[in-house]
Amino acid sequence: MSTHTAGRLRHWGHVPFTSVNISGDFWRPRISLLKDITLRVCLDKCEQTGRIANFAKAAGLAEGEFQGIYFDDSDVYKVLEGASYSLMLDRDPELEAEIDRIAALIASAQEEDGYLCTYFTLKEPDRKWTDMEKHEMYCGGHLIEAAVAYYEATGKRTLLDAACRLADHYDSLFGPGKRHWVEGHEEIELALVKLYRVTKEDRYWKLSLWLLEERGRGHGVGAIWDKEEWGPGYCQDDVPVKDIHHVKGHAVRAMYLYAAMADVVHVSGDPDYLNALLRVWSHTVERNMYITGGVGPSRHNEGFTHDYDLPNESAYCETCAAIAMAFWNHRMNLLLGDAKYADIVEREMYNGVLAGLSLSGDKFFYVNPLASKGDHHRVEWFNCSCCPTNLARFLPSVGNYVYACSEKGIAVNQYIQGTGVIRLEENDTNVRLKQTTAYPWQGDIALEVLPERDEAFEIRVRIPGWCRGYRLAVNGEPVPALDVRLESGYAVLERKWIQGDVVLLQLDMPVEIVRARPEVEANRGMIAIQRGPVVYCVEHADNPHLEYQSFSVRAGEAFAYEYRADVLGGAVLLAGNTEEGKPCTLIPYYAWDNRQPGFMQVWITEAEDRSLYAW
Amino acid sequence: MSTHTAGRLRHWGHVPFTSVNISGDFWRPRISLLKDITLRVCLDKCEQTGRIANFAKAAGLAEGEFQGIYFDDSDVYKVLEGASYSLMLDRDPELEAEIDRIAALIASAQEEDGYLCTYFTLKEPDRKWTDMEKHEMYCGGHLIEAAVAYYEATGKRTLLDAACRLADHYDSLFGPGKRHWVEGHEEIELALVKLYRVTKEDRYWKLSLWLLEERGRGHGVGAIWDKEEWGPGYCQDDVPVKDIHHVKGHAVRAMYLYAAMADVVHVSGDPDYLNALLRVWSHTVERNMYITGGVGPSRHNEGFTHDYDLPNESAYCETCAAIAMAFWNHRMNLLLGDAKYADIVEREMYNGVLAGLSLSGDKFFYVNPLASKGDHHRVEWFNCSCCPTNLARFLPSVGNYVYACSEKGIAVNQYIQGTGVIRLEENDTNVRLKQTTAYPWQGDIALEVLPERDEAFEIRVRIPGWCRGYRLAVNGEPVPALDVRLESGYAVLERKWIQGDVVLLQLDMPVEIVRARPEVEANRGMIAIQRGPVVYCVEHADNPHLEYQSFSVRAGEAFAYEYRADVLGGAVLLAGNTEEGKPCTLIPYYAWDNRQPGFMQVWITEAEDRSLYAW
Repeated sequence: MSTHTAGRLRHWGHVPFTSVNISGDFWRPRISLLKDITLRVCLDKCEQTGRIANFAKAAGLAEGEFQGIYFDDSDVYKVLEGASYSLMLDRDPELEAEIDRIAALIASAQEEDGYLCTYFTLKEPDRKWTDMEKHEMYCGGHLIEAAVAYYEATGKRTLLDAACRLADHYDSLFGPGKRHWVEGHEEIELALVKLYRVTKEDRYWKLSLWLLEERGRGHGVGAIWDKEEWGPGYCQDDVPVKDIHHVKGHAVRAMYLYAAMADVVHVSGDPDYLNALLRVWSHTVERNMYITGGVGPSRHNEGFTHDYDLPNESAYCETCAAIAMAFWNHRMNLLLGDAKYADIVEREMYNGVLAGLSLSGDKFFYVNPLASKGDHHRVEWFNCSCCPTNLARFLPSVGNYVYACSEKGIAVNQYIQGTGVIRLEENDTNVRLKQTTAYPWQGDIALEVLPERDEAFEIRVRIPGWCRGYRLAVNGEPVPALDVRLESGYAVLERKWIQGDVVLLQLDMPVEIVRARPEVEANRGMIAIQRGPVVYCVEHADNPHLEYQSFSVRAGEAFAYEYRADVLGGAVLLAGNTEEGKPCTLIPYYAWDNRQPGFMQVWITEAEDRSLYAW
Repeated sequence: MSTHTAGRLRHWGHVPFTSVNISGDFWRPRISLLKDITLRVCLDKCEQTGRIANFAKAAGLAEGEFQGIYFDDSDVYKVLEGASYSLMLDRDPELEAEIDRIAALIASAQEEDGYLCTYFTLKEPDRKWTDMEKHEMYCGGHLIEAAVAYYEATGKRTLLDAACRLADHYDSLFGPGKRHWVEGHEEIELALVKLYRVTKEDRYWKLSLWLLEERGRGHGVGAIWDKEEWGPGYCQDDVPVKDIHHVKGHAVRAMYLYAAMADVVHVSGDPDYLNALLRVWSHTVERNMYITGGVGPSRHNEGFTHDYDLPNESAYCETCAAIAMAFWNHRMNLLLGDAKYADIVEREMYNGVLAGLSLSGDKFFYVNPLASKGDHHRVEWFNCSCCPTNLARFLPSVGNYVYACSEKGIAVNQYIQGTGVIRLEENDTNVRLKQTTAYPWQGDIALEVLPERDEAFEIRVRIPGWCRGYRLAVNGEPVPALDVRLESGYAVLERKWIQGDVVLLQLDMPVEIVRARPEVEANRGMIAIQRGPVVYCVEHADNPHLEYQSFSVRAGEAFAYEYRADVLGGAVLLAGNTEEGKPCTLIPYYAWDNRQPGFMQVWITEAEDRSLYAW
């Protein structure tokens, strides 16, 4: 490891969502809705579509053929993972009994040698491991993640043991001196690191590393996909991962790959991996990410095309890709201690991810365009239903992103009302942090510090990338502006903290006019409007007098804003005027398509400002 | 008058500063300082330099030659005008006695026929009215303004009678069928309208109109200046005023001309004048105004050059020109009822004008660059001391810009803590408005409405051009964002107002990164920083570790900010970091050069943002 690169690594500690109690008006109702509605929908759909029955059939407990798509097992795993997270927040014997039953079914479907993938067991038992695009390990990866979650939620090893047997089975077949394998859809790689963290078995992260190393060597899935029009880059099998420079191919796969690489760097410290990650992160966010955090513009390959290709109406922006961006960026934040990664997590949380779910909790977007004529709507389920089930596991665990353990204390990454308990290993003590805030609607955050005992450590609070001005006070005393130390996007407060100290962070949260880089053809001559972390859009429901793409707004427009508890589940609305002199109301992008159908636009034609000053 | 143009005219009523009591921490101390220090300095300097003695000499009350420059009378008049304003705010028998004495001297210097200009009386009595560039009527104009102020402050007609005699003298010499005259330095034109308003004598505004009409007809001062390298445009004598398209020539002269034209339109409603004003206003603010509100980039002609020529270090930006911009824009606001003109008044108040005066009140800038190596400093006086004496009359009358009478009620143009009494002619009643605000440091303004009796009328509050988001509440009840009517830059509240109603306006006041239009060569690749109406700069005194022009700041930089009562007379400071990782403190531009000498920059090299997103 080069010292240069080593110096960059911060290795911050993850503070799991189980240590974070969320009470605020924004996320708490969403977490409850997830449990009451979304999980219920997902479980029912998994039942109705035969996804759960496939396990019973594979176990010989039921009759019938495999039903659905070859990767459908993964949906059951993901719902189970989400349900486990939900249980960790709110115990629920009924739900637990239900997932116990499913877990038992899953375990019973595992073959003698550890193999588990109901599609092959039921339909093509002789064609196991013959097609790297058939998601066998992808499904396995999701089993592992579900198993870890279920174990942590219930203490029951049913699935964890199955997961270990499955991983051991992989390990017996693949690896140095054994068979080659490049899993077509990444996921197993990060799952194996997770399994390693729970079991402390080195062989799991080493298998992950080996699987990553298989890529781009010409003997993997890329060899097959060469024939296809999108080439091996589709599966990130075109170059060895440490040589990655550009984001490419299927968006979710790419994001899972980078997340896994970040996990491995966390263990290995490999500077080549780190440099590849730094390059591809820049390439992703600087040239290939939408303002919503969405990635992967093209329906064709569910992924990337060329730089700055960010069309709005045809934006694919799979919900899973936004979730995966959050996964990856959270890992980058822990690895490097830079707030800019938490900025992206935030952007996904309030925009790209959240738009995936209806306010009613029972309908989903797979595809998240930034403009619509009015013909794009959330639905209850998909044949390929990865997005609903990814939301089912993302939302209850949103607390994962709030805090991190920095070298000398605590980093506050997200502003969400509630209480976190952070373990300071170095000081051998726990600190409770109590956040009071109306974020994302207001920029004031009060942070009550409750250490077990008086203790000196740092608290670093993220100054979001969208914020240009802020104030800090401790116990009512303003921190002199000249004394604020801003480091890697955090304002750092170092002192001996006494039980009950209160940090007040006041972030300016103005309405902000955003323009795209000129290279983004789709947005030339257009503006978008953001307030704090929330991207806004114009929707027909509020603007029946406007027509799609046929109005313009001045960049100098002033918007009246207002929190409306009674609208769209509680949101700040913006009200201004178009250049044509008509009223124009904006709502958060995440909340669109929750009322009567109609057009929607994030990017709006910019009216020429008739009194634009020279400077 | 074309109906089209007529429809544009609003003819709002001026609310004089005498109806506005200013109590806030920003302007109240400055108004006191003006009286205690600045006026004193100006009076003393006028005495010491022989400016006052010239009147005594011209009256035959003292011996000696004319001393100084041919337009020096005007400084005495302007100080007298400022002193009169000051007396209207704070009675002061000593100061009044002093200006009584000067007023008497002035009156005694007037010749039999009404002529008054001590330079010609004393030095070139035979060359009166032979050189249109010799400022005879310019001085006369300032006498008239002083006379009106002195009359209004004291009720004494000494000067008003002299002013009328002087104006009548002009009227006897010049006009249709009489001699031609184009005064080289405009001022008389707006002064004559003021005299008309006090005396109700139509001939004064008609003479003003005639003087305006003389311009650009080939028989005025332009005929002389043709020979000079800057041409007749220098004195705005190149085209008839109704054909003006472009701002041109000497900046102060141009602004005084446009102010006079606006005055005349207010009386005449002439659509050709109005259209000329609209054109030249756009041309001025869109292409030829600095972010500070400064105009006239060139020292050579004290004026304009070519579009977008806005160099920083060599910016001339005469203090008088900024003051004249406020005069003109205030008149435009009254004429057209558009807040964008009050935006410019504000910009001048907090930047271009205010920079002209030291915090100590006794030193002045004539020239206001936007960047300095550290060799430009305020001084106590100038041979041509128009700027100090213009500040002396602008600052005590700053209350002029706070309110206006709109067609249906009151327009609140500036946010300054204090109380205004506004006469609603239509309703035949008075309304007191009490503003409580920490503006320009905070964006919250509470407006207590105290009508003599319950009455229905509108209150329109200006939403400043720099503001993108705001909230309004009446008596603690938020005004629904969708119900806010925004008209010509004002949020309009119409209701029956009850004694003690409180309007709360909350303007987002974030730190704002400003970029120039690409046409402005001087600012390419640079950013400026503004917060609310206040433009910021980096000065050496706070940044001894930085070197002039050798650092850069990211547009994404977040600044800690803080109000410091103990620094620079009380100001919000901004603290951030340069791209090179050094701390960088910014102070309001108006406050520069009040500590040890050193460099100053408004525009700062923009660091490439290493994580610039695509959109």
